[in-house]
Amino acid sequence: MKNKKTVLPKNNRRKFLKAATATGVAAVAASSLAAPAVAAERVEIAIVTTWPRDFPGLGTGAQRFAQRMSDMSDGRFQVSYYAAGERVKAFDSFDEVASGNAQMYHGADYYWVGKDQAWGYFTAVPFGLTYTEINAWIRYGGGQELWDELAGKFGLKNFMCGNTGVQMGGWFNKKIRSANDFKGLKMRMPGLGGQVLGKLGGSPISLPGGQIYENLVSGAIDATEWVGPWNDEAMKFQEAAKYYYYPGMHEPGSMLAAGCNKSWLTSLSKSDQLLIEAAAAMENDVMMSEYNAKNGAALTRLINDHGVQLEKFSDKVYDGFSKAANEVFQEVQAGSDLAARIHASFVKAREEVGAWTNLSDSPYIAQRNRALGV
Amino acid sequence: MKNKKTVLPKNNRRKFLKAATATGVAAVAASSLAAPAVAAERVEIAIVTTWPRDFPGLGTGAQRFAQRMSDMSDGRFQVSYYAAGERVKAFDSFDEVASGNAQMYHGADYYWVGKDQAWGYFTAVPFGLTYTEINAWIRYGGGQELWDELAGKFGLKNFMCGNTGVQMGGWFNKKIRSANDFKGLKMRMPGLGGQVLGKLGGSPISLPGGQIYENLVSGAIDATEWVGPWNDEAMKFQEAAKYYYYPGMHEPGSMLAAGCNKSWLTSLSKSDQLLIEAAAAMENDVMMSEYNAKNGAALTRLINDHGVQLEKFSDKVYDGFSKAANEVFQEVQAGSDLAARIHASFVKAREEVGAWTNLSDSPYIAQRNRALGV
Repeated sequence: MKNKKTVLPKNNRRKFLKAATATGVAAVAASSLAAPAVAAERVEIAIVTTWPRDFPGLGTGAQRFAQRMSDMSDGRFQVSYYAAGERVKAFDSFDEVASGNAQMYHGADYYWVGKDQAWGYFTAVPFGLTYTEINAWIRYGGGQELWDELAGKFGLKNFMCGNTGVQMGGWFNKKIRSANDFKGLKMRMPGLGGQVLGKLGGSPISLPGGQIYENLVSGAIDATEWVGPWNDEAMKFQEAAKYYYYPGMHEPGSMLAAGCNKSWLTSLSKSDQLLIEAAAAMENDVMMSEYNAKNGAALTRLINDHGVQLEKFSDKVYDGFSKAANEVFQEVQAGSDLAARIHASFVKAREEVGAWTNLSDSPYIAQRNRALGV
Repeated sequence: MKNKKTVLPKNNRRKFLKAATATGVAAVAASSLAAPAVAAERVEIAIVTTWPRDFPGLGTGAQRFAQRMSDMSDGRFQVSYYAAGERVKAFDSFDEVASGNAQMYHGADYYWVGKDQAWGYFTAVPFGLTYTEINAWIRYGGGQELWDELAGKFGLKNFMCGNTGVQMGGWFNKKIRSANDFKGLKMRMPGLGGQVLGKLGGSPISLPGGQIYENLVSGAIDATEWVGPWNDEAMKFQEAAKYYYYPGMHEPGSMLAAGCNKSWLTSLSKSDQLLIEAAAAMENDVMMSEYNAKNGAALTRLINDHGVQLEKFSDKVYDGFSKAANEVFQEVQAGSDLAARIHASFVKAREEVGAWTNLSDSPYIAQRNRALGV
């Protein structure tokens, strides 16, 4: 439990005294008062995460979310935040919350595909949904209900709590001219994206963020993806790989999760549950905003200051990705009835919302950037 | 004040009694208790809006936001919601809040361009930012600070509170083959988009939602834009116009605002201010999700069930739009130092975030939809 940092509640003693007077009156004639005080219980929250402390975007976003819960409740929520390794290791966050040892985690739910393949859909899957599309699926396309069903099997209830957007395709030291170039390649790529890599003859390796750089430098892995320019630059991958490919097929809008111990969450008042949900929803919006604002500037630095060479995956490579992804999805659907239902719901959202994207964001951005030379 | 509907606070009598006991102890030895109660003051909020009651998306989103503030505070926020015309007319919402008669409005800030041209940037401008781009600008590109400066001149402080996404280009009864086809056209289009129409020789007309249909049916206007398939279908424009054009240049991500009387807002506790901000941020995420989920299905109905003909604006038409938009922006920048600074900040965001969009969402969606045939 070293390095525990606590978000300290403010001193509420003055308010207690004030409340004692106000509620004393309120109990007698609550309805006749214009603005009596309202009281609510303190809530203790230990939140463990899969991110290094202060890691830009993912770590700072999770910390901001924890601080927000404290601030929104004026310190009534007593939030203790633990980065990866400070209380449990990154990948033990799930069990820590499912068991009830901690109340919440912040992480990427595709880290739990070993427990059930279906978890992949609730971060990102290959050929999956972008940020705006996954939000539409989760909130209005049946996604949250299916996520609840999956999480409920483990005693969890999860909320969307951040997104990193469309990810870059990864860092390579050789050019990728066809899908065959993935044969024998040891590449860090978690979740179903890693399984697509495996279908192409590569060796997908799952590593938490803190261990990727050393493995890439030592040659223990040949290539890696992580997030995008802003985060990748902080990881110093530009020191260990030459080619930076786009667009990534594996994580087109990686949704982060605030995972809650369900028994604990449902023991709270409805308003406190909603307060947590709103704090998470705000982070969903804020984190994506931060990534989009900072990725462009970081990309310019990587190219101009570090000599990184930008490369685009060809149609041919993408066709190879698509074929391999279909094979992976066949296996995932065969895994369980729930996985098959989640896949069907996901595909429906991709077709319906994707068709709308074809008429809205895509042609607009194309025309705007063409006309303005952006 | 007819048709006033109140979001009723829940009965808190039981909690008052419980609190009286808890705080009685807490006042003696607060620090030794595990979970003493915390008290806070009631807050009265009258919120006026620019939307008809129950209007899908815009109206229901504003109502959901109002309800959320009540629910998150367990009824401590006593919220009275007034749709357009229930307390003041749609376009009088601004003055009602700036004057302090009401505490908040929900609306589209480009309705206030008559007070200052710069308001247009805080809903949508021609050749402007999409949802993800405007969020990045407001939260991490200096947008909120400039919005605060503009709103502060009128005694307001505004938060993002919903978005309708990329809008369709509008409903027409003749084909638009070049920018010349806008000459003499009477078209409903508010804000700076309307001014672009004016530069092309058209007559832009600003009408609140509730008055568009009758004007289109009567021929008082020749064409109209409104939002997108889901909202437009509800307005029954398909009964009065044949061609449905995309993509719209005028509103690529219309951001809705929760406008607050600044003196009132800053009189609240920091935690209550944050509660309002988080409720608004959640609506920003939820409303966009709803639009994206429902637009696709509505578009299919419009085409299959109503025989609406979908048409795409050509490069030539877009080049005409672009030239006219540049003229409009020259005038806007000349209007005031603040408008010029807002424009410069907006252009910087469009270049930086737009360049990132060129490497992320745009090529990914293109490859995914190509490979899958979406």
